[in-house]
Amino acid sequence: MKFDPWAVKDVDNYSKLFKEFGIERFKYGEKFPDNRYFRRGIVFGHRDFGKIAQAIENKKPYIMITGLMPSGKMHFGHKMVADQMIWYQNHGANIYLCCANLEACLMRDIDAEEGKKLGIEEYLTNYLALGLTSKNLNFWFQTDYDMHYHQFRDKLAKRVTLNELKAVYGDLGPEKILSSLTQAADIIHGQLPEFSGKMPTVVPVGADQDPHIRLTRDIASRLRQWHDIELPGATFHRFMEGMQGGKMSSSDPKSYIALTEDSASARKKVMSARTGGRESLEQQKKLGGRPEECSVYQFYHYHLIDDDKELEEVRKQCKSGSLLCGECKKKCADLVVNFLEEHQKKRQKAKKEVKRII
Amino acid sequence: MKFDPWAVKDVDNYSKLFKEFGIERFKYGEKFPDNRYFRRGIVFGHRDFGKIAQAIENKKPYIMITGLMPSGKMHFGHKMVADQMIWYQNHGANIYLCCANLEACLMRDIDAEEGKKLGIEEYLTNYLALGLTSKNLNFWFQTDYDMHYHQFRDKLAKRVTLNELKAVYGDLGPEKILSSLTQAADIIHGQLPEFSGKMPTVVPVGADQDPHIRLTRDIASRLRQWHDIELPGATFHRFMEGMQGGKMSSSDPKSYIALTEDSASARKKVMSARTGGRESLEQQKKLGGRPEECSVYQFYHYHLIDDDKELEEVRKQCKSGSLLCGECKKKCADLVVNFLEEHQKKRQKAKKEVKRII
Repeated sequence: MKFDPWAVKDVDNYSKLFKEFGIERFKYGEKFPDNRYFRRGIVFGHRDFGKIAQAIENKKPYIMITGLMPSGKMHFGHKMVADQMIWYQNHGANIYLCCANLEACLMRDIDAEEGKKLGIEEYLTNYLALGLTSKNLNFWFQTDYDMHYHQFRDKLAKRVTLNELKAVYGDLGPEKILSSLTQAADIIHGQLPEFSGKMPTVVPVGADQDPHIRLTRDIASRLRQWHDIELPGATFHRFMEGMQGGKMSSSDPKSYIALTEDSASARKKVMSARTGGRESLEQQKKLGGRPEECSVYQFYHYHLIDDDKELEEVRKQCKSGSLLCGECKKKCADLVVNFLEEHQKKRQKAKKEVKRII
Repeated sequence: MKFDPWAVKDVDNYSKLFKEFGIERFKYGEKFPDNRYFRRGIVFGHRDFGKIAQAIENKKPYIMITGLMPSGKMHFGHKMVADQMIWYQNHGANIYLCCANLEACLMRDIDAEEGKKLGIEEYLTNYLALGLTSKNLNFWFQTDYDMHYHQFRDKLAKRVTLNELKAVYGDLGPEKILSSLTQAADIIHGQLPEFSGKMPTVVPVGADQDPHIRLTRDIASRLRQWHDIELPGATFHRFMEGMQGGKMSSSDPKSYIALTEDSASARKKVMSARTGGRESLEQQKKLGGRPEECSVYQFYHYHLIDDDKELEEVRKQCKSGSLLCGECKKKCADLVVNFLEEHQKKRQKAKKEVKRII
C-alpha cells in the first residue's frame, strides 16, 4: 500500500466498518498490474470481486455498471471512474453506463432534458475521449430507456420497506425514494433476460457508498425468487481530495480541474494548489515535504505518472527535501496542460462518436 | 333526491365533510336528464363540474379520466363507472382510460402482464360491450405507456412531501408512494402538450376518494408554474351495496353479479339477495317493504329500470305492501338475465374491437 498514503489513512478509518459489514480488502493489484487504481490501492475494498476476477481470467461475461451525475463539469475526480470503466471494457466487460438525469432532476432540480444534454456534451464526450468505445457499451438515460427497465424499477417498490430506505438515506421524501429505487434498478437490471442475463456485476463506488450497495444486494437477494441473478458486487475507491484540501466538488471550481479547462486556468490552479510543503524553504530542505498531504502529488499518483518507479522517485525526492514545491508544481502543471491539450483534441473526434452511441 | 334513498343517507353523512373541504352538491341532473346517475342523485357531489357542464354545452374539449383495477371480475358495481364514461364519450369528452396494472402489481401482487390480460379480457371487453367506442379513446397500461407519461410521473415525486402522502394514504411504503404518484400522473398527464393539452378534466370517483382528488389538485396547482393546466375536477358517486348488504366487493362473489356471470348463477344470486322485506308476509302487507334497504331495488335504481316513472311505480308498490319480495326478485332476475344474455352476445363483437384499441 506504500503508494497510497491517503488510502492507508482511509482504510484504517473504514476497516472496522468493513469488518462489520463484510467488505473485503482489495488484493488484486498484483493480478491486474495494468490497473493503476488497483495497483496503488486507490481501489482498496470490494464485495464479490473474486467473481469478476474469475470472469476476466476465464473470458466469461460480466457487467460493470456505473452512473454519471449530469451536474457541473467533469473533472479529474470523475476521471478515475471513467478510467476504471475503460479498463473493464478492455477486459471484456459489458459496460452499463447510466446518465443519472432523473436523480439530477429529483435531487438537484436539474431539468431532465438539460441533464441529458450535459450528460452527453460533458461526460459521455469526455469518456470517449479518454478511450471508452461503443463496444459492448450500453448507455442510457434514467428518464428514457427501455420499457423493461422502467417496469423493473417500479416493481422494486414492493421489495423494500420505508424503514430500510430510511436506514440508508436518512430523512426521506418521495424524490429520494424514487431515486434510490432507480439506483437499485440501474445496478440490477442488466442481469434480466431482456438485457445481458445473469452474470457477475461490479459497481465501482466511493467507500461511502457501501450502504447503497448493501441495500441493492438485499433487494437483489429478494428478487432471486423471480429472477435468476447474481448479487451485485462492488469495488470501493477513495476519492481525490480537493486542490485546496477538503472535498473535490463540482460546486467549487477551485477544488478541481475540469477536463475541458483551458491551459492557463489549469496551470494557475496547479500553481496555487495546497502542497505538503513546509513553512520555509529552510525547513523543507531540512525536514522534506509531505506527499501524503499534497494535492500535487495526488495528481501524479492518480493520473499523471503511471510508472510506479518514477512516482516513487518523486516521492523520495520530495521527502528528502531535494524536490521543492515550486519546481514540482511546474512539473505537474506541464503534465496537466499536456494532458488537457491532448484530451481536448480527442474530444473533437469524440463528439462525432457520441452520435453513434445515443 | 327522492329516487335515491341511499344517497340521501350518505349525503347527510358526508355533508359536513363536504362543506369543510369545499365539495359541492351535484345539481346537474336537470341539465343532463339523459344521465341516470346524475338524475337520480347517485352522483351527488363534485368539484369544478361547472367547467365540464360548460364544455359539454359549448362543445369544447374536455377530459374524462378513470382507471380500472384489473383484479377479479367486473360486476354491476363497476358498470356504473363504465356507463358514466360512455355517457361522457357521447358528450364529446376525450376519454382517458387507464388499466391500473402497476397499482395491482404493487398493492395486490398481481403480475403486471396478468393485470394487462385481465384488464383487456375482463374490463375493456365489457366496456366496449356496454357501448364504449374507440372514438377519442386513450387507453393505456400504467406499466407501459408513452415515455412522456412515465417521465411526468417520476417528476411528480418532487412536488409532494411524505407527510402529505401520509395524511391521505396512512401508513406508507414505497409501493404506496409510487402508486399514489402514478394516480396523480394518470389524472393530470392528459393536459400536457404531448397529450390533449390544457382543458377541464373530470374524474368520476366514489365519495371516499376525495382525499386523493384533493392531493392531486394540490400537486396540479404546484405544477402550474411549469405547465399551463386546469386543476382536475371530480364527481362523487355512491357505490352499490353488496347483494347481502355490506360492501359489493370483487373478493366476495356473493356480493355481486359479474357481467360475465351465467344466467343460472345470476338468477340464484338475485333470488337469495337481501331485500327490504318484513319478517312475515302479513307484516309486509301491513307495513310495506323498505326499498331503501333492498339490494333488489338497488339494481333497478342503478341499472335495470331507466324510466323514472316505472321505477317510482315499483317503489310505491313495494312501500304499499302490494309488491312482495318473491315476485319482485323474479322480475329483477328476469331483467338481470336478459341484460346479461344481451351483454354477453355483445362481448363477442367487442373482443374483435379490443384489438384495434390496444
